[in-house]
Amino acid sequence: MTGTERLAALRARCAAPPAGDEAAAAAVTARQARLTKPPGSLGRLEALAAWMARWQGRALPRLERVQVLVFAGNHGVAARGVSPYPAAVTAQMVANFAAGGAAINQLAACAGARLRVVPLALETPTADMTEAPALAPEEFLDAVDSGAAAMDEEVDLLCLGEMGIGNTTAGAALAAALFGGGGDWAGRGTGLDEAGLARKRAVVEAALARHPEARTDPLEAARRLGGRELAAILGAALEARRRGVPVLLDGFVCTAAAAPLARLAPGGLDHALVAHCSAEAGHRRLVEALGQRPLLDLGMRLGEASGAALAVPLLRAALACHAGMATFAEAGVAEGAP
Amino acid sequence: MTGTERLAALRARCAAPPAGDEAAAAAVTARQARLTKPPGSLGRLEALAAWMARWQGRALPRLERVQVLVFAGNHGVAARGVSPYPAAVTAQMVANFAAGGAAINQLAACAGARLRVVPLALETPTADMTEAPALAPEEFLDAVDSGAAAMDEEVDLLCLGEMGIGNTTAGAALAAALFGGGGDWAGRGTGLDEAGLARKRAVVEAALARHPEARTDPLEAARRLGGRELAAILGAALEARRRGVPVLLDGFVCTAAAAPLARLAPGGLDHALVAHCSAEAGHRRLVEALGQRPLLDLGMRLGEASGAALAVPLLRAALACHAGMATFAEAGVAEGAP
Repeated sequence: MTGTERLAALRARCAAPPAGDEAAAAAVTARQARLTKPPGSLGRLEALAAWMARWQGRALPRLERVQVLVFAGNHGVAARGVSPYPAAVTAQMVANFAAGGAAINQLAACAGARLRVVPLALETPTADMTEAPALAPEEFLDAVDSGAAAMDEEVDLLCLGEMGIGNTTAGAALAAALFGGGGDWAGRGTGLDEAGLARKRAVVEAALARHPEARTDPLEAARRLGGRELAAILGAALEARRRGVPVLLDGFVCTAAAAPLARLAPGGLDHALVAHCSAEAGHRRLVEALGQRPLLDLGMRLGEASGAALAVPLLRAALACHAGMATFAEAGVAEGAP
Repeated sequence: MTGTERLAALRARCAAPPAGDEAAAAAVTARQARLTKPPGSLGRLEALAAWMARWQGRALPRLERVQVLVFAGNHGVAARGVSPYPAAVTAQMVANFAAGGAAINQLAACAGARLRVVPLALETPTADMTEAPALAPEEFLDAVDSGAAAMDEEVDLLCLGEMGIGNTTAGAALAAALFGGGGDWAGRGTGLDEAGLARKRAVVEAALARHPEARTDPLEAARRLGGRELAAILGAALEARRRGVPVLLDGFVCTAAAAPLARLAPGGLDHALVAHCSAEAGHRRLVEALGQRPLLDLGMRLGEASGAALAVPLLRAALACHAGMATFAEAGVAEGAP
């Protein structure tokens, strides 16, 4: 296929996401009503069990195989002083992931999840988006495909995350293109001071001015303003939908990366939950724009899929209650007055 | 000791809680700054590691032995129609706990915690607090002692919770006595309708009018307006402080039960965190009055220590990052610009 044909095929897939299994979700809800607890008293745990059922297509969802995928990429825009860290840190952190020394190594282990880190052409940063599209069409499509290909053969739940010096700038530009606004989406990232934040805002504005077509075409926004790790997240989230795998999204960059799916089809991101509300400035605004309510709000702003992995035990708890609790009839407990 | 002497001894212990180990907490904070992440980017996970260090008195906290304690009691006030469930459900649910069929059985297992359920004289409900003190002094002190005695010999973290038909009414009255207000602390509990909620508010007001001394004496508030399971929670939380065991508190009733410790000494409840913000109406107000910020907010309102057990994996994750991550120097990762 030519690049144009591949892009059209991707666009068609994004426009027609498979529906969820409402019968499986309804079966979960019906069982919840018979369990030994006041109706609704497990709150979002009840909704989470139904959500997993809907997107796995099983009335008794399972969480045996949880995969954490962290994509890493480098950004031409990093040369513009939008991060307090040098671009070399992306590769250094990938080595740290491989050695087991990063936060996500510990958090994936706590979650009982397999971690796979996928560095994407780190030696070839994207183009500086203030001057040119971050990625050529073939580069973008290859990165999307890398995301889909990184999934294990059998996965019950996918946690997505990223690492890439400069990528909160890409995330801010992408969010602005998708949902309106401009430099006001920029935050302090890994720890910018006031002058750095002002530079970052100006860079986001310049990128948006350079790529007006990004405002009207979510895939062009992802290609022109994103990066390889963001494209891979989009590809993995899309593939997860096709394969019946619910997704936990990490923080600001990860959510922005997947957000085009919500713009390309109604409900296109319904199989994905934002796991944690990042302290990065734009994330709360972004999750509200997506109609999401994060499961956790603990002031983290690390990336690496850390917030997604941290939420996995909540899903395990939801399933354990759903599968393990006795019904009123089984336990001989009186039900409440109607 | 006479009842008067025992009460004076309890009052003295509440007034002089042991201080935390600030050196251990500072050691955690210093290590956090050297780990391979932007400073502060693990948000509350960093603070949680320091909190555990402070109250365990170890720079490397541990979570090998987590205990979940659920105290159960019955309430004379239940006869006033303040719950949609009959009082017999307290004992039925204790049987359900023993059989492994309740939510807390699943959640304790998920948390890697030992569960102990302690029924407290279920056949002898408290007196109706609108007519008399809920508990006589000896009954109250015995229940406090039961709470302390229920702790395992070796505990790294204690999760507290309760079960007792009618006890959100007791919790509301206790919260009002401690923090001001009246029937406005009452919520729907396990699922009251409007008429039931109006009855419950009136019962809380009547109890407060009957026991004016509860407004000025937090221990008298606990004795006159509480119940055995609430007194046991107070006793367990106090004993945990003495033994260097951090505590996770569950929802509205559990928080109200422990709240006298915060009124009897500055910082008297600093070793205890409210784990989850309950959907029960008064809980958010109560945690704000205590200056707390719950770790989770998932709309649960079950009790049984469910919210406390659900938060245990967050503490495990905080410790895993603290203990397992590499430092910048170890990993050869460049630090950010100052």
